[in-house]
Amino acid sequence: MTRVDLIKQIHLKQNYLCVGLDTDIERIPKHLLEEEDPVFAFNKAIIDATADHCVAYKINTAFYEALGVKGWLALEKTVQYIPSTHFKIADAKRGDIGNTSEQYARAFFQALPFDSITVAPYMGSDSVQPFLQYPGKWAIVLGLTSNKGAADFEMQQLISTNGETHLRASYLYERVLDTVKNWGTTDNLMFVVGATQAEEFDNIRSIIPDHFLLVPGVGAQGGSLKDISEKAMNKDCGLLINASRSIIYASSEKDFAEKAALEAKALHEEMKEYLTRVERL
Amino acid sequence: MTRVDLIKQIHLKQNYLCVGLDTDIERIPKHLLEEEDPVFAFNKAIIDATADHCVAYKINTAFYEALGVKGWLALEKTVQYIPSTHFKIADAKRGDIGNTSEQYARAFFQALPFDSITVAPYMGSDSVQPFLQYPGKWAIVLGLTSNKGAADFEMQQLISTNGETHLRASYLYERVLDTVKNWGTTDNLMFVVGATQAEEFDNIRSIIPDHFLLVPGVGAQGGSLKDISEKAMNKDCGLLINASRSIIYASSEKDFAEKAALEAKALHEEMKEYLTRVERL
Repeated sequence: MTRVDLIKQIHLKQNYLCVGLDTDIERIPKHLLEEEDPVFAFNKAIIDATADHCVAYKINTAFYEALGVKGWLALEKTVQYIPSTHFKIADAKRGDIGNTSEQYARAFFQALPFDSITVAPYMGSDSVQPFLQYPGKWAIVLGLTSNKGAADFEMQQLISTNGETHLRASYLYERVLDTVKNWGTTDNLMFVVGATQAEEFDNIRSIIPDHFLLVPGVGAQGGSLKDISEKAMNKDCGLLINASRSIIYASSEKDFAEKAALEAKALHEEMKEYLTRVERL
Repeated sequence: MTRVDLIKQIHLKQNYLCVGLDTDIERIPKHLLEEEDPVFAFNKAIIDATADHCVAYKINTAFYEALGVKGWLALEKTVQYIPSTHFKIADAKRGDIGNTSEQYARAFFQALPFDSITVAPYMGSDSVQPFLQYPGKWAIVLGLTSNKGAADFEMQQLISTNGETHLRASYLYERVLDTVKNWGTTDNLMFVVGATQAEEFDNIRSIIPDHFLLVPGVGAQGGSLKDISEKAMNKDCGLLINASRSIIYASSEKDFAEKAALEAKALHEEMKEYLTRVERL
């Protein structure tokens, strides 16, 4: 999906919600375990119930790989089931030397019809570039993540490249944003910024004003939709806000899909309001 | 496989070679394409031919994921086929927030019988720790990689944590080694250091003298087995040197397994010589 089409969907639906399919076989309603493919049955019901209230789905590959071949099959069926109107994210955190990242790009962009994949930046340019070679496909590179461990390296300070230490030093994550943005364009690169990092959003927008951000951490992890929307929205919206557990596990009973729809609808209603800001810009 | 058992295998075989199964369906001999599972047929022949000349196998997950469900099945059959005498590495470069890394640990340590998995450190402690909870299993964390992109972030200089900038600043990769080593022990943590980074090995051993290093980059990427062995071997050997393409694609004809064995044997012979150094220590 191109940037133009993504923005069109956001305006059409007045929505920038991404529903995260972190489908854990141990947490889905028990009655689904009788199905031939319980994970896909769960995802299908969630997608049917939430499609009107989101613009994107994010499949967290770890939960599928944990089930082996069966899990990979459920992943394949799920991504194929997502409507073409919705942006499809493989939340896979891949990244390796060039010839290997090329294979990951094939896996998610050719063998599977994902629009995008999350990518870890540690190994540098040749680990990211193979994901930028597919028209209409995106690399979503980790910037500042939502977890506690973000403090260990992402928030460590680097010496500036011209050796000046009297200027404000940059955090590693800032260097990542500032460097990686030059490897692609606003049409094929997004960045992951955790919703729990609200105090950094002004700064992030000064480095990458126009890029889309994928923002996990709303819901179970405690980030505020209002804060992020106020601080990080740009003229094209520029946000995909992900919620996973708070939506898909809203109920563990037979009404799980209805309850998921209600959670997604509540976020949708809130988003409609924040989007009026974009209209006004 | 525990550290004691791994060292035992190294001494028994006088060998610290890891054969990398980066099996690309487009590069395997054409006659294998008639097999029901060409990738597994290729791997089986390579394993049979090289098992006497190596102590470990490394499966590069990207090449299997690129084939979808069929690829994941070939990966599963391959790891199950590797003899229990050999250390099994999932070269998967995973890493995510805690609840997701837990799922990756399940995928590779429970659903599949790998001894170890390569892990990207960018997201910090909670992204690595779930891989350290399985007795006899290992996280192999990226330190300094063999590719050109290592210069982009891994070799960027950080301000020291106590604010002293007059001291020698550390590279990001040094901080990663120095920080991550405290999250586990020499029994459950190894580090990836590329063979192309020979000038950094003295320094690396001053930070992590006792850890095992997984060293890719010998062969196709140009690193020298002699240099690495001289600079980075410790009293327990402490090295697993990986070669992938130079072994498995030594021939593209029907003699591919024989030729792979010869390549592995040549490295094995060289290693026997370097290991006499350990005996002398």
